[in-house]
Amino acid sequence: MAKKTGMRSVRFEKSVCIKSVSSVAGTKESEGPLKDCFDISVNDNLYGEDSWEKAEAKFAGRAMEEAVRKGALTFGDIDYILAGDLQNQTTASCYAAAKLDNSFFGLYGACSTFGEGLSLGAALIDGGWGKNVLCEASSHFCAAEKQFRFPLELGNQRPQTSTWTVTGSGAAVLCGEGNYPRITGITTGRIVDAGITDANNMGAAMAPAAADIILNHFRDFSSGPQDYDRIFTGDLGYVGREILLKLLSEKGCHIEEIHRDCGILIYDRDKQDTHSGGSGCACSALVFSAIYKKLIEGEYKKVLLIPTGALMSPVSVQQGESIMGICHLVMIEKR
Amino acid sequence: MAKKTGMRSVRFEKSVCIKSVSSVAGTKESEGPLKDCFDISVNDNLYGEDSWEKAEAKFAGRAMEEAVRKGALTFGDIDYILAGDLQNQTTASCYAAAKLDNSFFGLYGACSTFGEGLSLGAALIDGGWGKNVLCEASSHFCAAEKQFRFPLELGNQRPQTSTWTVTGSGAAVLCGEGNYPRITGITTGRIVDAGITDANNMGAAMAPAAADIILNHFRDFSSGPQDYDRIFTGDLGYVGREILLKLLSEKGCHIEEIHRDCGILIYDRDKQDTHSGGSGCACSALVFSAIYKKLIEGEYKKVLLIPTGALMSPVSVQQGESIMGICHLVMIEKR
Repeated sequence: MAKKTGMRSVRFEKSVCIKSVSSVAGTKESEGPLKDCFDISVNDNLYGEDSWEKAEAKFAGRAMEEAVRKGALTFGDIDYILAGDLQNQTTASCYAAAKLDNSFFGLYGACSTFGEGLSLGAALIDGGWGKNVLCEASSHFCAAEKQFRFPLELGNQRPQTSTWTVTGSGAAVLCGEGNYPRITGITTGRIVDAGITDANNMGAAMAPAAADIILNHFRDFSSGPQDYDRIFTGDLGYVGREILLKLLSEKGCHIEEIHRDCGILIYDRDKQDTHSGGSGCACSALVFSAIYKKLIEGEYKKVLLIPTGALMSPVSVQQGESIMGICHLVMIEKR
Repeated sequence: MAKKTGMRSVRFEKSVCIKSVSSVAGTKESEGPLKDCFDISVNDNLYGEDSWEKAEAKFAGRAMEEAVRKGALTFGDIDYILAGDLQNQTTASCYAAAKLDNSFFGLYGACSTFGEGLSLGAALIDGGWGKNVLCEASSHFCAAEKQFRFPLELGNQRPQTSTWTVTGSGAAVLCGEGNYPRITGITTGRIVDAGITDANNMGAAMAPAAADIILNHFRDFSSGPQDYDRIFTGDLGYVGREILLKLLSEKGCHIEEIHRDCGILIYDRDKQDTHSGGSGCACSALVFSAIYKKLIEGEYKKVLLIPTGALMSPVSVQQGESIMGICHLVMIEKR
């Protein structure tokens, strides 16, 4: 059973495993450095649908199917689905789940949603709510740009601080036993408002929340950078990573060598210029396929996955409100 | 510890209590039949702010403060906040929680969010994640109409099937022990798509999901209407209640006498014509204050609270997509 650890964390002993992981990637993502790690590469960002919103729901649905299939399960074996996305009222996840018969919890943690799903999913598995819980998150560049920034048809120039919303979906099945990578701890973020109002600089909005959760995690588990093979943040990008490292360094904490950001890993900086990197719920969810592979292969024994989220809405940005950050940290080990 | 019961439910023995409940109600709600049950009545729907969105965040913040105060706690005693609302990207909850220092999980279950929060909050309390969990949900008539339907300034005529989004916020603190009303079971809904495309007829979109979760609950707990003092749905309104009763009656299930709908209870049909009744996340969250009072006073011993949600977005409605329904059922007992 979960054991509360410090102020913001819980620890699990052997109760929560990650049975399978899936990734369905869009065009640009399938041409990037991690292309060989994805289960399905889709070379049509409309995915045969007539709107970007419906396409995203299809990405979400395919990722859920693939995670269930790779876990040698059927949807009848899934006790709960926890899912979310960036669309207003998280409709991508809802339309995907509406085609299924499973009990459903909808989440909104902006781009941290995959971490939130793994966190609450772990609570359900550990708490005896069921045998298998499916966690999923998606995003779509076109649906997100249209909603949060400008119509794509305008062809706006994007500032250098902006990130490119990842198109795709990632999913994972959690279960209670088996020789799989295990979730051994969760640290839950608080909302940190750093006063950023530029919807094209989400790295700056999220970095303070990421620094906060990392420091909280180290304190709660009496650990430090030396205890992990890698620390993966979700989608800080180049701009956000720099701020994160500076904020941590000011506190005497140095993670430079083991820190990687999923938003930096997913695209090739030289060949696929996306300015500050990738972002979106699918960013950490897709890159997690690559991380999981290295856990299975033994290259990593203990990592932190920290999906990072920028909390804002089209309305809040138009009203000049600041963009808040939140993160959900998941500690994963394979022995 | 939670025990999985049937296909969609879990049962708790004595592990989850509802320590305190709060309600901060808007103008129309404070003039309705339940006015004496609310903690705070706000006679200015802008609540001193300069936008409806910010006003809703203030309602949410006040409800959280009040629930914590009534539980004789401080925010330092709260291990997690679970909250959500109807605004795009659930910004009301996020801006309210940004002023606090608590670990935060953002939820989106449309108007079923309060039930979703109580469900996942119960999982955290039962699972040993902490001592106190705060669950909150809000909605605001003006913010919702503007976002989902028409600018208020147009003064559109509303069809008879439409409901009136409740302005306000309700919150509850869950804890592990004490002589309080207890959450003894949870039944989690699946997403049901009944093919409704009219954003002014949400009762019809949600009633099939409500019928589904009630039948699932009775099956999972081997119970029936005779086992409950009351069954409260969230915001089906007059139109949705009629459909619900018909759907259940077709399955040989009769709950007419003990069924109440929070959307019907919150407004006076004759003096406050709102057509089909009230709706919004705050509908069941506010009415829960009245229900909780009757549990404390001994008038009810066992009730079902079933917040009902209509899953849609402004974009999905404009694209002609159907409006899906979801419900989250919480079984509450006081002995």
